[in-house]
Amino acid sequence: MGFTHMDANGNAIMVDVGGKAITQRMAVATGRIGMSEECFLAVQNGTAQKGDVLGVAQVAGIMATKKTSELIPLCHLLNLTKSQIHFRLCEAEHAVEVTCTVACEGKTGVEMEALTGATVALLTVYDMCKAIDKGMVISNVHLVEKHGGKSGDFVNFNCKKGENE
Amino acid sequence: MGFTHMDANGNAIMVDVGGKAITQRMAVATGRIGMSEECFLAVQNGTAQKGDVLGVAQVAGIMATKKTSELIPLCHLLNLTKSQIHFRLCEAEHAVEVTCTVACEGKTGVEMEALTGATVALLTVYDMCKAIDKGMVISNVHLVEKHGGKSGDFVNFNCKKGENE
Amino acid sequence: MGFTHMDANGNAIMVDVGGKAITQRMAVATGRIGMSEECFLAVQNGTAQKGDVLGVAQVAGIMATKKTSELIPLCHLLNLTKSQIHFRLCEAEHAVEVTCTVACEGKTGVEMEALTGATVALLTVYDMCKAIDKGMVISNVHLVEKHGGKSGDFVNFNCKKGENE
Amino acid sequence: MGFTHMDANGNAIMVDVGGKAITQRMAVATGRIGMSEECFLAVQNGTAQKGDVLGVAQVAGIMATKKTSELIPLCHLLNLTKSQIHFRLCEAEHAVEVTCTVACEGKTGVEMEALTGATVALLTVYDMCKAIDKGMVISNVHLVEKHGGKSGDFVNFNCKKGENE
Amino acid sequence: MGFTHMDANGNAIMVDVGGKAITQRMAVATGRIGMSEECFLAVQNGTAQKGDVLGVAQVAGIMATKKTSELIPLCHLLNLTKSQIHFRLCEAEHAVEVTCTVACEGKTGVEMEALTGATVALLTVYDMCKAIDKGMVISNVHLVEKHGGKSGDFVNFNCKKGENE
Amino acid sequence: MGFTHMDANGNAIMVDVGGKAITQRMAVATGRIGMSEECFLAVQNGTAQKGDVLGVAQVAGIMATKKTSELIPLCHLLNLTKSQIHFRLCEAEHAVEVTCTVACEGKTGVEMEALTGATVALLTVYDMCKAIDKGMVISNVHLVEKHGGKSGDFVNFNCKKGENE
Repeated sequence: MGFTHMDANGNAIMVDVGGKAITQRMAVATGRIGMSEECFLAVQNGTAQKGDVLGVAQVAGIMATKKTSELIPLCHLLNLTKSQIHFRLCEAEHAVEVTCTVACEGKTGVEMEALTGATVALLTVYDMCKAIDKGMVISNVHLVEKHGGKSGDFVNFNCKKGENE
Repeated sequence: MGFTHMDANGNAIMVDVGGKAITQRMAVATGRIGMSEECFLAVQNGTAQKGDVLGVAQVAGIMATKKTSELIPLCHLLNLTKSQIHFRLCEAEHAVEVTCTVACEGKTGVEMEALTGATVALLTVYDMCKAIDKGMVISNVHLVEKHGGKSGDFVNFNCKKGENE
Repeated sequence: MGFTHMDANGNAIMVDVGGKAITQRMAVATGRIGMSEECFLAVQNGTAQKGDVLGVAQVAGIMATKKTSELIPLCHLLNLTKSQIHFRLCEAEHAVEVTCTVACEGKTGVEMEALTGATVALLTVYDMCKAIDKGMVISNVHLVEKHGGKSGDFVNFNCKKGENE
Repeated sequence: MGFTHMDANGNAIMVDVGGKAITQRMAVATGRIGMSEECFLAVQNGTAQKGDVLGVAQVAGIMATKKTSELIPLCHLLNLTKSQIHFRLCEAEHAVEVTCTVACEGKTGVEMEALTGATVALLTVYDMCKAIDKGMVISNVHLVEKHGGKSGDFVNFNCKKGENE
Repeated sequence: MGFTHMDANGNAIMVDVGGKAITQRMAVATGRIGMSEECFLAVQNGTAQKGDVLGVAQVAGIMATKKTSELIPLCHLLNLTKSQIHFRLCEAEHAVEVTCTVACEGKTGVEMEALTGATVALLTVYDMCKAIDKGMVISNVHLVEKHGGKSGDFVNFNCKKGENE
Repeated sequence: MGFTHMDANGNAIMVDVGGKAITQRMAVATGRIGMSEECFLAVQNGTAQKGDVLGVAQVAGIMATKKTSELIPLCHLLNLTKSQIHFRLCEAEHAVEVTCTVACEGKTGVEMEALTGATVALLTVYDMCKAIDKGMVISNVHLVEKHGGKSGDFVNFNCKKGENE
């Protein structure tokens, strides 16, 4: 099984999806950012009172899903019909977990859009908290599931929540 | 110690750096993507023969450092004087590790540029390999060191290489 | 009646339009910029002789309609089939009035594209004339009409031309 | 007094600022959006509970100040040192008033950045509320003051608040 | 026969393609960059060993095809289904020839996308080689063929390869 | 003499200009587009009456100089202080010649900005005239001169006007 982004001579190509059918596509990606207790409490309290850190990160993540084809060289431009970012505060681990859900009707999947949205949301959390904690770590960024298209459904059973993070 | 991205009323603001001195800034960020053995070998062999997967990801990472202020809402636009992406193949773990080094002369640091470059390079590796392995995981994305500016030097001693990844 | 850009928990979301039908959409927006007599005459004469101020503003407005989803966080990306900017010189009031007409075939309307095009065209007039008059005022920016989609036709009967500007 | 954006032959040019001194620049712009009582109450209550409409518009306005030179054809790219968006709810008129404050150290002023930030923030309010009220009107967008540069200070005394809106 | 980008009053317009059918579109464009022998050998050897100059130019060309509607004011945004860049080293003339092939399903053609991809790829070659040779010349950029749409097939028989370059 | 865009291992890098002095930079680039007589007359007459084709192309070229670092992967972001596009109608050859002049104060040159501005202006002419003539050819795009920086002055004496086009 080979790379679909390379032709027979090893050239980078944007995969030709001209012959593929238009189907309903969706993908969910997740990731998390771990931080110090001091920093986590500031996000948590800030969130409760003002919604700011996660509010800004939510907007950044949604906007990033729309910019994916500008960032990832061989990605196709897609007209997303849905883009959502949700956060979960993991008190025990002092971590913020993000989930990005994206959908479109098109000839190619939206996995990269979901992963890009999740990642930029986490980078924005880093940006807004780095005055308190520069040692934050982003981890466990992966595709949770995707549906639609020729390759069909994918559900990431290996990545149980809380594991290998 | 509070958030610098919020004013007293909890509004999101781009921090006023007008009074700060222009100093030499640099930052290094890293991260990694773990994959199946089949996928890792394809990257490794592809790299040896054609340079493609990592070659494209390198360009994507460099270009992303220049787009940081468009992605991270409260980031200042900076004129980077240097932007480099390097990869290390970790055979034992079937992982690709990226290091992004960025520099500028300015009033604010380049931590976000280094983290954004590293992350987008890893996302591009995901994109180019996802036909082989959709279960890849991006992890251990963090700031390695930064220099310059009022807050001075930061070196991330907690994140020893090879640990908590 | 509630906000469609928020879910039940008050999170910002890009509205899911996946289930909506693709219909023919169009929208018209308008707005105006008032200026000093000296400035108005310069635009008017410049226009007659060279076409420049309004010519550049026209290009800026058309290009802005294509950038709407990058500017307005929760807007969907749409493939516009039509984008037009027209100006009317209002001699009596020393004002330039812009009309932006946009169309597409899609699952969501083009109101924001029309409003963004009109606004950026007016901002460009401001930019090109500000050496003469910094006191210009942009006013009466509103949707004139929109057609297509589930919510059907909208015509703004309240905003008669020349009124409340 | 002529246009600085045109040469002697009427060509559009980006003004040559090479010979100008680098000085501290700042500008403040304002504008407002009027809406129905139902819509105003939804913004007001939404704001009190969740901060959403104005929170998203605030991020959009800040990001737009950084995109000004992409939107306004003859604007120079500037490295903003400060960008802030504030809202005021005008209960009597059912209007939201925005103020955008921008600063940089450079060879040319930041008037267009302040006006663009204010305008895009208002357009975002429109976008998020248009399911409730499509008849909203953006008005009274103007420069409040600017400082720095060869043309010196400008304060807009003609536009008293509450007037000609 | 008149310009389709102007209305009856000479205004620039984005052509209304709302009534056109969605058909399969493709276009091929080419161009070349001539350089000194020293520079050509460096590209050729660099390519053989590392793939770098042409590898980076290939990515740049593909990404540029996706940015066409941002660069060419009256171009429609299209969702490309295919975008490829290939190079041919012309030893006799010390030139690099690029071919860009683009396809989509849409209401308007992809000629501009193909030409933009070819041109940006050549500009990137210039950028990466200019330390060796600043006198390089880009020439013979033209449309080779296009298919689909109301105007049907076009094949550029006048531009035989190797001629008038 | 080697490539400055590659390190010792053949990796693409953005050249480190951190140690370079800030000097006054300028560059001039040119290029031309040849077309059928019918098409040339339409441009010429259109220009005389309305300024449209060349007016739009002028705006496109200026805006493109500001986008150069987004298009050319290893280009540094620069704050241009000047950007001008001029056209010359070459009646004898039915060609339009463009000249793009760009300046900045910075650590690296503006050759790529001048070349990008010239090229995008020519592509825009192509776009606006392609309904009349699809066989147009862009040729003789090259750097005319550049000044400032460590490598000093460069004047392209080899490219006499009218030759090898």
